[in-house]
Amino acid sequence: MAKRVAIMGATGAVGVEFLRILEQRAFPLASLKLLASSRSAGKTMPFRGQSLPVEELTDKSFRGIELVLASAGSSISKQFAPAANAAGAVIVDNTSAFRMVDGIPLVVPEVNPKDINTHKGIIANPNCSTIIMNVPIWPLHVAFGIKRLVVSTYQAVSGAGAKAMAELEQQARDWAAGKPVSKSVMPHQALFNVFSHNSKIGANGYNEEENKMVNETHKIFHDPRIAITATCVRVAVLRAHSEAVNIQFSRPVSEQQVRQVLAAAPGVKIVDDRRANYHPMPLDASGQDDVLVGRIRQDPSLEGGVGIDLFISGDQIRKGAALNAVQIAEML
Amino acid sequence: MAKRVAIMGATGAVGVEFLRILEQRAFPLASLKLLASSRSAGKTMPFRGQSLPVEELTDKSFRGIELVLASAGSSISKQFAPAANAAGAVIVDNTSAFRMVDGIPLVVPEVNPKDINTHKGIIANPNCSTIIMNVPIWPLHVAFGIKRLVVSTYQAVSGAGAKAMAELEQQARDWAAGKPVSKSVMPHQALFNVFSHNSKIGANGYNEEENKMVNETHKIFHDPRIAITATCVRVAVLRAHSEAVNIQFSRPVSEQQVRQVLAAAPGVKIVDDRRANYHPMPLDASGQDDVLVGRIRQDPSLEGGVGIDLFISGDQIRKGAALNAVQIAEML
Repeated sequence: MAKRVAIMGATGAVGVEFLRILEQRAFPLASLKLLASSRSAGKTMPFRGQSLPVEELTDKSFRGIELVLASAGSSISKQFAPAANAAGAVIVDNTSAFRMVDGIPLVVPEVNPKDINTHKGIIANPNCSTIIMNVPIWPLHVAFGIKRLVVSTYQAVSGAGAKAMAELEQQARDWAAGKPVSKSVMPHQALFNVFSHNSKIGANGYNEEENKMVNETHKIFHDPRIAITATCVRVAVLRAHSEAVNIQFSRPVSEQQVRQVLAAAPGVKIVDDRRANYHPMPLDASGQDDVLVGRIRQDPSLEGGVGIDLFISGDQIRKGAALNAVQIAEML
Repeated sequence: MAKRVAIMGATGAVGVEFLRILEQRAFPLASLKLLASSRSAGKTMPFRGQSLPVEELTDKSFRGIELVLASAGSSISKQFAPAANAAGAVIVDNTSAFRMVDGIPLVVPEVNPKDINTHKGIIANPNCSTIIMNVPIWPLHVAFGIKRLVVSTYQAVSGAGAKAMAELEQQARDWAAGKPVSKSVMPHQALFNVFSHNSKIGANGYNEEENKMVNETHKIFHDPRIAITATCVRVAVLRAHSEAVNIQFSRPVSEQQVRQVLAAAPGVKIVDDRRANYHPMPLDASGQDDVLVGRIRQDPSLEGGVGIDLFISGDQIRKGAALNAVQIAEML
């Protein structure tokens, strides 16, 4: 059952996490090939006590490969998917290239694992903010029926890659040294700041990240009727996303019922200590597989007991990207 | 018309801002007395080219004082208000001590200036998050009628005082120096983190900050029918609060109508450049009198065109506290 695997974009933030997760989960590997741009070719990366070479990604990279974990950017995925499929490999793609393409499954294993079976060579991994929201929201939708979601995100810079993380760290070092704080990866200073998500704003006034949360959730849930509005915001956090989620159900739901469903939900960990005021935080979620869920409370602004407020945190690089993709690969 | 003024809590973050604003606005002063705890007595603070002494706050501090600007904590305000009123002084109180007391006006000058006239010696200054939300929300309520608000905050540490700001700065210095990051003012590390607001959680599951946003808005607007739910969160920002606000109106409202109302609203500055992806940020709002409003867009998750999403930023110490109190004093 061991697979011959290639990682596209092995040297990026998600690529590094792919290696860590394949190690930690003892993924059955017959071989592992690390692929990246020509700039990174020749480097080595540690894996299971060995030192693996990074090779330049070309159309010929996929000979004998059965599974590709891709996270080298949307245009790279579009460019190399045909060659990978032609060589017989299945691609689990972490970019936005194929997510909304009809016939290509978009999968969160805790939500729609059966969609994996419909693949024709490509399985898309959803956007990080979408995955982190969907893991706790799906079991609540199954149990009670969700009518509308209002979500505001507190997103780590890691979503813009390892360079954005390094930039925030450098800003902290420069500030501490009394030097001017500069930025080139992100459009605005992240240190001691908050800014609207750095994706393009569309004709509807929502940015791409916000539109992804709406459209991808509809596809993953197979339910376009759920009304969703999102405000996506970057905060000065390195690698876990948080989200304030207001839920309107189609029928009355108590806090206790929500707690019971979430306590039994796969991939969810309840962190909700009102007395100690201890709730989900990105520093705690970093490095964890589970999405942390807390601040569970009945929203009195909706009549009839149909509203619930939540606050969640999940590791953007892990469950928001690499882990979700490896979980899909494990199910193949 | 010049007044004999005393500042209670002169050495705190808001106290320092009181001095700055009295200078900048050329507030008519016959005299200015700086009051603080015995620990700070004997210090001096610069004001209009002079060096003013800080005196210990006692019941006898108010002789001859006509106006007290108070920001030394709720219990201090409760303790000294009777003495100040007995001496004939009017108190503009920036603490939560009297905000929800029947008969004591709670005022945002852009919203309910006439309530000032009903005072009997005390006028309460609202919570910072409430003020910053109310300035742009009120003119929209007057124009179109608001039915429900869902708000998520991105709050600076300055709301917990100058010590909390110094703690975040020290965390950045320690992190940059490779030292362990510690905390004693805030319950959690603020640097590279986000955490649920550090106020006590009540029986309804909402923390005090969230309940203030609901109850104070109802009192200021004289309209308890507006449904409000809030999630209040601290971010690693020094001194300006941001808020994602989802508004449900009682009738259809277009983006264009909202822009027109906000463009004419006092205390509001529209910062909403979709092409450049430039929107309200706490770094920009810091030091500004106006509340910045952007990301103005029609929310398609509400049927009938009754929904609007906004993102706002306002200086927590300035409009959220000291400036609002001085504006009240100017109207007296």
